[in-house]
Amino acid sequence: MRDAYHEELDSIGDGLVEMARLVGSAIGRATTAMLDSDLKLAENVIEADQKVDELQHDLEARAIALLARQQPVATDLRIVVTSLRMSADLERSGDLAQHVAKLARLRYPDRAVPSDLHATILEMGQLAQRLMAKAAEVIITKDVDLALQLEQDDDEMDLLHRTLFRHLMDDRWKHGIETAVDVTLLGRYYERFADHAVSVAKRVVYLVTGEHADELQADSQPEIQAVAGPESA
Amino acid sequence: MRDAYHEELDSIGDGLVEMARLVGSAIGRATTAMLDSDLKLAENVIEADQKVDELQHDLEARAIALLARQQPVATDLRIVVTSLRMSADLERSGDLAQHVAKLARLRYPDRAVPSDLHATILEMGQLAQRLMAKAAEVIITKDVDLALQLEQDDDEMDLLHRTLFRHLMDDRWKHGIETAVDVTLLGRYYERFADHAVSVAKRVVYLVTGEHADELQADSQPEIQAVAGPESA
Repeated sequence: MRDAYHEELDSIGDGLVEMARLVGSAIGRATTAMLDSDLKLAENVIEADQKVDELQHDLEARAIALLARQQPVATDLRIVVTSLRMSADLERSGDLAQHVAKLARLRYPDRAVPSDLHATILEMGQLAQRLMAKAAEVIITKDVDLALQLEQDDDEMDLLHRTLFRHLMDDRWKHGIETAVDVTLLGRYYERFADHAVSVAKRVVYLVTGEHADELQADSQPEIQAVAGPESA
Repeated sequence: MRDAYHEELDSIGDGLVEMARLVGSAIGRATTAMLDSDLKLAENVIEADQKVDELQHDLEARAIALLARQQPVATDLRIVVTSLRMSADLERSGDLAQHVAKLARLRYPDRAVPSDLHATILEMGQLAQRLMAKAAEVIITKDVDLALQLEQDDDEMDLLHRTLFRHLMDDRWKHGIETAVDVTLLGRYYERFADHAVSVAKRVVYLVTGEHADELQADSQPEIQAVAGPESA
């Protein structure tokens, strides 16, 4: 019985990795759809989010069934509860990728992103995808060092986000209000996506060490001054 | 023992109501701080969010202890797991109220919201606060009808959000890019805050009926056409 139980626990972990893989791919494809104004790809991303939602429902149902049937305590209990939270992070990340794709669809055949911001948005999309790939790797390997590394990668996202704001606030901005609104929301979507990837990794740290990731590296991360945008405030 | 258990379960419910009360108050005060450019009030809201975070940590620790010690099944298990989710919704709502307050602080002594949008933002703030007050009432009363009502109130938030976008996209917009960015983010914060209040209410419906709220009113809510803003897309 105990073996079937750990198999079920492993399979919940597999489900989380699958979710991370799907949403990582989704944010990458949504970014491409937006930068290329590729309607078909955008619609493909929008539809694919249903699979993520289904995985989450399935995973939650199995986690709750496991709690009821096996009544785990201590570490095992912590794993199941933390899995529920990770699945919520991943489901939300999928929504954010879908938001990016919906923006691409809304502006089609125009491009939501002006060409002078193309590189920054591409970087944000790639970084978001990379963060999620690392989060998946952290779930698999339970590598605490890799998990802590994600927070530093997230600082990079903050920098990109500020670059975006600097462009927006520049007096020479010539793309009008609609594009400013689009770019503001896009920045927010990528930033939140990255936050969720970091959150997944932090939860693994908590599982492995019993400590919250913030406490493990209290001194290693300098506070960056807010230079632009209410986000950073 | 069984009585102490239900007392603990009740006290978790009390903690959720307290969190909802705090974040409802926070979004109301943050809105006032922003519309009046009241720095002191803004800082007060920003600091007060710590109390919400503490309540969540406390509540989560107690929920997990309850799972470990009492190993509830069926309905009781569902209540504990759902409480964990509600506390996450409420904690996030607190963050969003804090974002509004931080924007007020960032723009002080200027006002982030131009006077022709004052009324719309005030309405969004008041509606957000009302939605959260209703969510708290739903937690206390487990009133399914009231819970379903929240979704209709949320339609009102969507309409306000669209009004905001219509202003932004209007050719006569004369407040510049920075204000457009601020207003875009504000709209997003209020909309997400409302989503979390609705989510709390929906989770109560699920607890009471065993059915997801969407299924209970599949026909009662007409789909509103996206008229403005990527949000609604």
